[in-house]
Amino acid sequence: MPVSTIKLASGHDMPLVGFGLWKVPAEQAAETVYNAIVVGYRLFDGAYDYQNEKEAGQGIKRAISEGLVKREEIFVVTKLWNNYHRREYALAQAKTQNEAWGLDYIDLYLIHFPIALKYVSPEDIRYPAWWQDAEHTKVEVENVPLHETWRALEEIVDTGIARSIGISNAQAQTLFDLQTYARHPVSSLQIEHHPYLVQPTLISLAQKMNIAVTAYSSFGPQSFKELPAAFSARTNDIALLWDVDVVQKAASRTGKTPAQVLLRWATQRGIAVIPKSNNKDRLQQNLEVTDFDLQSDEIEAISALDKGLRFNDPGFYLETPIPLFA
Amino acid sequence: MPVSTIKLASGHDMPLVGFGLWKVPAEQAAETVYNAIVVGYRLFDGAYDYQNEKEAGQGIKRAISEGLVKREEIFVVTKLWNNYHRREYALAQAKTQNEAWGLDYIDLYLIHFPIALKYVSPEDIRYPAWWQDAEHTKVEVENVPLHETWRALEEIVDTGIARSIGISNAQAQTLFDLQTYARHPVSSLQIEHHPYLVQPTLISLAQKMNIAVTAYSSFGPQSFKELPAAFSARTNDIALLWDVDVVQKAASRTGKTPAQVLLRWATQRGIAVIPKSNNKDRLQQNLEVTDFDLQSDEIEAISALDKGLRFNDPGFYLETPIPLFA
Repeated sequence: MPVSTIKLASGHDMPLVGFGLWKVPAEQAAETVYNAIVVGYRLFDGAYDYQNEKEAGQGIKRAISEGLVKREEIFVVTKLWNNYHRREYALAQAKTQNEAWGLDYIDLYLIHFPIALKYVSPEDIRYPAWWQDAEHTKVEVENVPLHETWRALEEIVDTGIARSIGISNAQAQTLFDLQTYARHPVSSLQIEHHPYLVQPTLISLAQKMNIAVTAYSSFGPQSFKELPAAFSARTNDIALLWDVDVVQKAASRTGKTPAQVLLRWATQRGIAVIPKSNNKDRLQQNLEVTDFDLQSDEIEAISALDKGLRFNDPGFYLETPIPLFA
Repeated sequence: MPVSTIKLASGHDMPLVGFGLWKVPAEQAAETVYNAIVVGYRLFDGAYDYQNEKEAGQGIKRAISEGLVKREEIFVVTKLWNNYHRREYALAQAKTQNEAWGLDYIDLYLIHFPIALKYVSPEDIRYPAWWQDAEHTKVEVENVPLHETWRALEEIVDTGIARSIGISNAQAQTLFDLQTYARHPVSSLQIEHHPYLVQPTLISLAQKMNIAVTAYSSFGPQSFKELPAAFSARTNDIALLWDVDVVQKAASRTGKTPAQVLLRWATQRGIAVIPKSNNKDRLQQNLEVTDFDLQSDEIEAISALDKGLRFNDPGFYLETPIPLFA
């Protein structure tokens, strides 16, 4: 089955379904990615923050060397971390990250969060690195305007390291401002998006701006239950999305799994998804989410679960909070 | 009674209670402002969009000429409208607006909304002017980065036209980005703030950045009921804040009016307020909102009315929506 794609503003095609590399341990990443390609995945969503780019690249290179896919059939997404927003660091990081993947170029390079934090050497930083130290106390913002970082991303396109650029975790006002100075288009916006955090206005705005939206954490609380208490607290006392009645009903009517219904709820509205699974059957199922249709009343009923409940606002929990979604 | 003030990052003092000029008809503005000064008001919150700056200035000048107040005791706030974000237009508008007030300088000049719309000559524009024409169809954004507009505001400070500058209707990410390039401090953030839209995270963020927060629409739905249907729709089926039990109870305990309780709920947390009234008794009452205290449980109970219900998102209703709060 060919992978459904979405045309980016840059002119390149992006698969509508991909594999998310967040929380994939480095030592398993090569094997996991290789297996995902065997199953049919073509997009891999990585980030410097995930600390598994080199290994993910190894998995892709193995598949290419075995003739399973060609480089141009693969779509690599990765992201610039907050400590490297200054032009010279951004350029250096893109080069380093591109070399880690080892695939000649990055398909889509995103600003991970629209916040600049003080530079720390990649050698000194502890990952996951929203916090710079174990006590979570030393995170400091740095005065790097977003337009400096965006200019750097445009240079990264000019030099051929990345083919498309975009941003993750942006609010509406950030999109409006970016659009005023973007020389290369904002091709993609990646945001937390699930039935407990629907954000219809932001999504509609981005799509009207011809910015392709990718949903992360499509399964909602599921991804956050295993995280430290500060993050997982918001998952308490809330039903897992697979257990919700309207999701189960749609699954039962379509003969699909609840996870597939949750992913189709997004893709049917033109929103790309990047689920992760360590289970081979679910890996396969998560990919098959563009070849059946939910009814409009099913989509509406799932959207009606909206609680404005955001799980991923990591700066919110700092001693001096850096809340990005207020 | 001396007016309570708040120290701005610019070093100037801003009264904690002022008079809001939104929806004050031009033909009544001089008299209204003069009477407000008689009662004790010292801060007047205007905007180019309100189309009553000249008349408000006349009221202030009358009070000065009669010896009621000195210029330096008055604090004039006004705002740059969306069509004039380009540097040269912003400079020209500040000059024109300052001349309209006729008071030598503006105390605080704010970007009204963080969105740049296409320039239209002040002579051609129909006010209220979020929409450029009666059909509400021709509103177009203009590629003016917010940093260009902020630079212009800084020039306006340099030339002595304004003493402090700030922004209205900004999201957290806009504040973070502004802070990276501000040469003159962001002294003030003016936002919709009432018990149905509390925004504690945004307010706490601004206050930690030493940005003084001013609440507009402190009475919530009340201000919007009289507007066209698109705006007033969100006020349907929701209790007026003065009728809400916890507000009435606090009023009864303190011997104040519900309106005073709503204003004190803000000022007690260091948030400035700018109510408007055409009634002389209420004008007086609205000013007396810094000399009594609510109990912390009363503040919490009022804050617990939060519904995330925003009444003022004017671009949301356009044919091609310009939603600023997604």
